[in-house]
Amino acid sequence: MKTNKNKNSNKKPPQKGKHEKILRAAIKVFAKNGFHNSKISQIAKEAGVADGTIYLYFKNKDDILIRLFEEKLDEIIDDLNAQIGQTDDPREKFKIFVRKHLTTVEKARNLSEVISVELRQSHKFMKEYHPQKFGEYLNILSRIIREGKEKGIFRSGLMPGIIKRSIFGALDEMVLYWVLTPNPKYDLETCVNQVTDFFLRGLEK
Amino acid sequence: MKTNKNKNSNKKPPQKGKHEKILRAAIKVFAKNGFHNSKISQIAKEAGVADGTIYLYFKNKDDILIRLFEEKLDEIIDDLNAQIGQTDDPREKFKIFVRKHLTTVEKARNLSEVISVELRQSHKFMKEYHPQKFGEYLNILSRIIREGKEKGIFRSGLMPGIIKRSIFGALDEMVLYWVLTPNPKYDLETCVNQVTDFFLRGLEK
Repeated sequence: MKTNKNKNSNKKPPQKGKHEKILRAAIKVFAKNGFHNSKISQIAKEAGVADGTIYLYFKNKDDILIRLFEEKLDEIIDDLNAQIGQTDDPREKFKIFVRKHLTTVEKARNLSEVISVELRQSHKFMKEYHPQKFGEYLNILSRIIREGKEKGIFRSGLMPGIIKRSIFGALDEMVLYWVLTPNPKYDLETCVNQVTDFFLRGLEK
Repeated sequence: MKTNKNKNSNKKPPQKGKHEKILRAAIKVFAKNGFHNSKISQIAKEAGVADGTIYLYFKNKDDILIRLFEEKLDEIIDDLNAQIGQTDDPREKFKIFVRKHLTTVEKARNLSEVISVELRQSHKFMKEYHPQKFGEYLNILSRIIREGKEKGIFRSGLMPGIIKRSIFGALDEMVLYWVLTPNPKYDLETCVNQVTDFFLRGLEK
């Protein structure tokens, strides 16, 4: 699944390593201090580079956050497309999407916290960023819905543009609940099953 | 000039009118500048009061934001309970909830923007606030779900604690879409109908 990384690992130019080191450090620093209270110097220290080095790779703190989001999302999109491509059943595709979205929390808790909580604290991001990658991610969902409608499995009256946002919002809220709740009442598996069942029922004819 | 330092006996009790004036001013200032870029002095100017007056009513900027959220939510909860009380049908109650949540955007755009976008920019709010009022709001939804299950109208396997969050997340995302999109592709009525239909189908037996 994560073939991209392995494939490229030997060809990485030296600066690619630093770029990633800075991003990994930023995840830690943002998750610990919150986006607004984090300083470039803290990220530099965590990454083991000089403050000035950060600016060779990123314009500013907002830029780090946005790149963090975009690169992670890129990876998730690639993974998802590969997994979804293995089945022709839109119901199965939908299940894969929900599971992937929700289990990312468990695999990368700090990153999930940064994306769910801290990203919204970047005013620049919320107001000015043109969310191309995010749009691409949501469109996986609308393609699944459209395919389900074409195959006569999902209801014809559903508008993918609205439904995809509803589903994303629901999943995002579940992630927020986990990252902000010290001892969540519901385990991940229960949530994946409940949410999948609830939405599939809403989609199906 | 002599000033009486005996604050306890001479301090005027805070006036309801001023409290509201400050909150209304804060909505405008937060919506215009974003939470983090807003200053107490700007709120004071907008409200037509001295900077120091703000601190008679609120501890700090975060406190203003949280009180804004809590008081508006209180109003919405009262309204909702009154409307929901007029029907015995959990399906109708659910429709009322969705419509109320989504149409609040149209009635109070600035406030909706503040709640959806700016509230998440308050690190204090996201991490430390114990969302009692918010919990109360979500529990209206879980009561409707529970009632529907008891009456045999909604499916017995649904867990209200998970489903209420999914539904809230979906509605919140729709609101976010409206406040951040200059010319939304979908009108409010279409969204209310799509979302209600999609979720009711997921809930019903």
